[in-house]
Amino acid sequence: MFQDFSSPSKKISGDERLSLLRDQMKSLELDALIIPHGDEQRNEYLPSCNERLAWTTGFTGSAGAAIITENLAIIFVDGRYTLQAAEQTDPSYFQVESLVDNPPHKWLGSHSHENWRVGIDPWLHGQSEVEQLNKALEKHNGKLKLLEANLVDIAWAERPSQPMGKVEIHPIEYAGVTTREKLEQLNESLRDAGAEICVISDATSVSWLFNIRGNDVTHTPLVLAHAILRTGKRPILFIDERKLDIETTAYLNQVADLMSPSSMSDQIRSLSQNTRVMLDPSQTPFAIEEIVRSSGGTIVPHRDPIVMPKAIKNSTEIEGCKAAHIRDGAAMATFLCWLDGQDYQTLDEITAAKKLEAIRSEMTGNLALKDISFDTISGSGPNGAIVHYRVNESTNRAFSNNELYLIDSGGQYMDGTTDITRTIAIGEPGEEESSAFTLVLKGHIAIATARFPQGTRGMDLDPLARMPLWQEGKDYAHGTGHGVGSYLAVHEGPQNISKRGVQELMSGMILSNEPGHYKAGHYGIRIENLILVNHAPKTHDDELAMLQFENLTWAPIDYRLIRIEMLSDFELGWVNNYHRKVYEILHSKVNEKVKIWLAAATRPLKNK
Amino acid sequence: MFQDFSSPSKKISGDERLSLLRDQMKSLELDALIIPHGDEQRNEYLPSCNERLAWTTGFTGSAGAAIITENLAIIFVDGRYTLQAAEQTDPSYFQVESLVDNPPHKWLGSHSHENWRVGIDPWLHGQSEVEQLNKALEKHNGKLKLLEANLVDIAWAERPSQPMGKVEIHPIEYAGVTTREKLEQLNESLRDAGAEICVISDATSVSWLFNIRGNDVTHTPLVLAHAILRTGKRPILFIDERKLDIETTAYLNQVADLMSPSSMSDQIRSLSQNTRVMLDPSQTPFAIEEIVRSSGGTIVPHRDPIVMPKAIKNSTEIEGCKAAHIRDGAAMATFLCWLDGQDYQTLDEITAAKKLEAIRSEMTGNLALKDISFDTISGSGPNGAIVHYRVNESTNRAFSNNELYLIDSGGQYMDGTTDITRTIAIGEPGEEESSAFTLVLKGHIAIATARFPQGTRGMDLDPLARMPLWQEGKDYAHGTGHGVGSYLAVHEGPQNISKRGVQELMSGMILSNEPGHYKAGHYGIRIENLILVNHAPKTHDDELAMLQFENLTWAPIDYRLIRIEMLSDFELGWVNNYHRKVYEILHSKVNEKVKIWLAAATRPLKNK
Repeated sequence: MFQDFSSPSKKISGDERLSLLRDQMKSLELDALIIPHGDEQRNEYLPSCNERLAWTTGFTGSAGAAIITENLAIIFVDGRYTLQAAEQTDPSYFQVESLVDNPPHKWLGSHSHENWRVGIDPWLHGQSEVEQLNKALEKHNGKLKLLEANLVDIAWAERPSQPMGKVEIHPIEYAGVTTREKLEQLNESLRDAGAEICVISDATSVSWLFNIRGNDVTHTPLVLAHAILRTGKRPILFIDERKLDIETTAYLNQVADLMSPSSMSDQIRSLSQNTRVMLDPSQTPFAIEEIVRSSGGTIVPHRDPIVMPKAIKNSTEIEGCKAAHIRDGAAMATFLCWLDGQDYQTLDEITAAKKLEAIRSEMTGNLALKDISFDTISGSGPNGAIVHYRVNESTNRAFSNNELYLIDSGGQYMDGTTDITRTIAIGEPGEEESSAFTLVLKGHIAIATARFPQGTRGMDLDPLARMPLWQEGKDYAHGTGHGVGSYLAVHEGPQNISKRGVQELMSGMILSNEPGHYKAGHYGIRIENLILVNHAPKTHDDELAMLQFENLTWAPIDYRLIRIEMLSDFELGWVNNYHRKVYEILHSKVNEKVKIWLAAATRPLKNK
Repeated sequence: MFQDFSSPSKKISGDERLSLLRDQMKSLELDALIIPHGDEQRNEYLPSCNERLAWTTGFTGSAGAAIITENLAIIFVDGRYTLQAAEQTDPSYFQVESLVDNPPHKWLGSHSHENWRVGIDPWLHGQSEVEQLNKALEKHNGKLKLLEANLVDIAWAERPSQPMGKVEIHPIEYAGVTTREKLEQLNESLRDAGAEICVISDATSVSWLFNIRGNDVTHTPLVLAHAILRTGKRPILFIDERKLDIETTAYLNQVADLMSPSSMSDQIRSLSQNTRVMLDPSQTPFAIEEIVRSSGGTIVPHRDPIVMPKAIKNSTEIEGCKAAHIRDGAAMATFLCWLDGQDYQTLDEITAAKKLEAIRSEMTGNLALKDISFDTISGSGPNGAIVHYRVNESTNRAFSNNELYLIDSGGQYMDGTTDITRTIAIGEPGEEESSAFTLVLKGHIAIATARFPQGTRGMDLDPLARMPLWQEGKDYAHGTGHGVGSYLAVHEGPQNISKRGVQELMSGMILSNEPGHYKAGHYGIRIENLILVNHAPKTHDDELAMLQFENLTWAPIDYRLIRIEMLSDFELGWVNNYHRKVYEILHSKVNEKVKIWLAAATRPLKNK
């Protein structure tokens, strides 16, 4: 089982751990210490050794921060974690604050005293955070103290060691482009920006560049490693050699100088002298900027040059992604058929999520499921309305009749990463639910069928998915789509479809299309397929170069929740065409029982 | 006639004027001089005394800049003015550059030499421009020199004097809120932002605050004046007393301390000492920032506090705007009826524009046409495709059969400002034109009928107007809508509907809804109504507080260009409902002949 359904850890007493930190703070003359959730590489999934916020506070959510002072301990979390933080932290030691309304810098702006010295680990904060914090402290003549060692790491007696996931070569039949070719392109990017070297802090970028995958964090097959690109020279790859075997060492030695992670700071220091160093301000720890500056280097602020080639999939990655989606679709269809055949009284959220993972895992060979791409969101009834719901043994809910079940899941395969959400009728949900479902479907279709000129940003498409809901006074409080990696992170930038989606969409990018609607305490609805940006075939009337989406995900959308009379002819045509293709693509990949179910689940719908 | 159709001025020889400037540059040891189009108050329409770019170069367009060096003179203009700049400037002295691809700071970055000193008038540039220029010059150790006097003004022997438009009180029956009440609200804004005083540099803000209108620039009834707000004290109004008569002096003396414009710098200097001074970075000349800083004031960067109350119209302004639109609609209907009755062979662009202005001018009394709100865009055939086309005697084009005619115009009335575009069939234009027209209409209807949650920004609605065109591979290269003032600027921020529309739309804002489509060398299409943001009545299904638009503009949309079969039932319903209301509202305001025409032009359309 890739997913762990055990209940979140029980409260830990704040007493001992806070004392250990406060003793150190005292000896360093610190008035406050900031402990963010993020780690040195801004990983979405932290290796357990970097769960410093959880160790300190007990809170295990995926975003947050803490501030420790002599007398106070504040934990900052966003709205989705307010309850969880209150449950997981010891109220006699911690108070919970809003990460959104009153984030650490704002809190310090109003609560810090004259001349405060506030400690941070400069490896865990970027430049803009440091500036924000400094600005807040300046009001009271306070300042940040950049710590040389992380105080949590010192206090944490049983801190796990760094993950040593075995590195695997990502074969050219799935990667499509060799590291050598990628390096040539990156060399150009550096030259164009007038930089001589570039420090890559994003582990997914490093993994993509060197065509390696690993097992250092859950659900994302990245290799924790840093790299330095050098124009006209071999790059340096900072990687723990214990992760490498003879084959991977030989492979990597062909394209890079391998060095130990512990030598990275010194290397940056010596390479930066009188050198123009490209750093991505959104990814680079402040500590690295400080090293570059103090060694006389000039920082060239520039987006990680790997971000764009990684986001724009090559033809091999695209073909792999399509193949992965067909296998994943067959698994989803098998699961949905199984679900329909169950008595709802025997079902609960964990049973269903386990069954789906088991079906996905039945595939074998090279292209077997390597991992799920994130913890399955398996929410029945009101739990479906919790957008970031993760079922565990204490929240696990038995299915009831006449409600909705929302399941959002994905797989990591060597040829591609998948992410799909379906919302299923258990029994006969009411008209309100099917009306809302149909509005969400209309939004999904609006994105799926959009044509748009080159230069269109994700934010320009986001409203199309919301319009049908808006007309009925409804909306959803999340983005419409995120970028997806190629056997890498299921959440990948810079492309997305949301109110903040400033990246122009380009042919080869993969995104999710997942409008939804949620009624707190009642139900949740989301319909998610992955889509690929393509050049649109030029028609007679086209005056501009246009783009459109190609659908990647194949699995039935529950007809029992569609109110056909709410669909236009165009929309109904899309529904029928999509399901015709679902059947064509999947029927030969599933067993006879599923095939019969699939034929019914994809039959043409008719307007009455 | 408010519109001047005379041909743009002929080329002036660059020789004499450039010599006068270069002599001064030499004595000041300047290597280059920048002459922007914008003036001290960032006016959209410049008083003639501020047409410094036109005096220097001959170029009379509404945006641009020049750089003069010892040997070179560069004029920077955007795409719409490339031809005009080449025609109006002397090619033996001036070279034309792109204001977009290679603006002055970029040009200086690559063309300035070591240690250049570049002169600017700090009253004509804002902080961000100064920073951009400084950054570009620093590459070669150059720097900006802030000039104490404007070199063009010194060289310009026959420079017109400052405009002395008579100030009129904008009566409370149109303004709706007294200056006293407005000042109370502004006092709060200053206190909330922690500022003690605020310098208002935007003449439309000053005019709105003091409920005064004037005649200083064409087409916008603003009063050129500055103001300083002071918490707990009367504001200072810097205004030339020659613009005031006994009545307006008495009125203004009740609410403000009146001072001469020439005393403003000294006043800012003395008021800024140890004071927190609110300045809008997007509106404030760098010169004012320098005065505040040098007198020991602390700048509080903050949006002009008048911008939001000015944009959110009060109920009196809204009622006035509706009334103005009914009168303006009657004029438009009368014009369109007249146009239909003409033999196209007798028509040209100027004849048509003059006729429309004459019809608008026939209204008399208090609420007569005070001015047109901008120079009418009257473009037949291919001239319609020039988005910012202004007809003059040398471009004036006779109508031809079977083409489109685009007319974009508006009026300034004491109760409101109007802006309307209609595209008219002359003879029988082809299917291509009517298809494109219908796509534009579908986009117009999508905006007109949108419902959207509070918090929606203009940029979130912009794509709705483009979607029908996108589906056919088309688009338009301008925003969908701009804000409109209340008997003030026809282009008013901060609200707009465009790719850059970050302002959230709020009940009471007035915008235009004007999607279009243009085929260069062939035709232009635009359909423009003004719309008002309203709270949407709450329906049974609404879960959120919603907004919607109310239509303000009433005039027939040319049925001859609508391809009914391309409209959905919903869209056709909108067309018929709109025209039913047009007839209801206008039929009693027009003469018998127009009424008969109007009945036909607004008859219900039926789907075949």
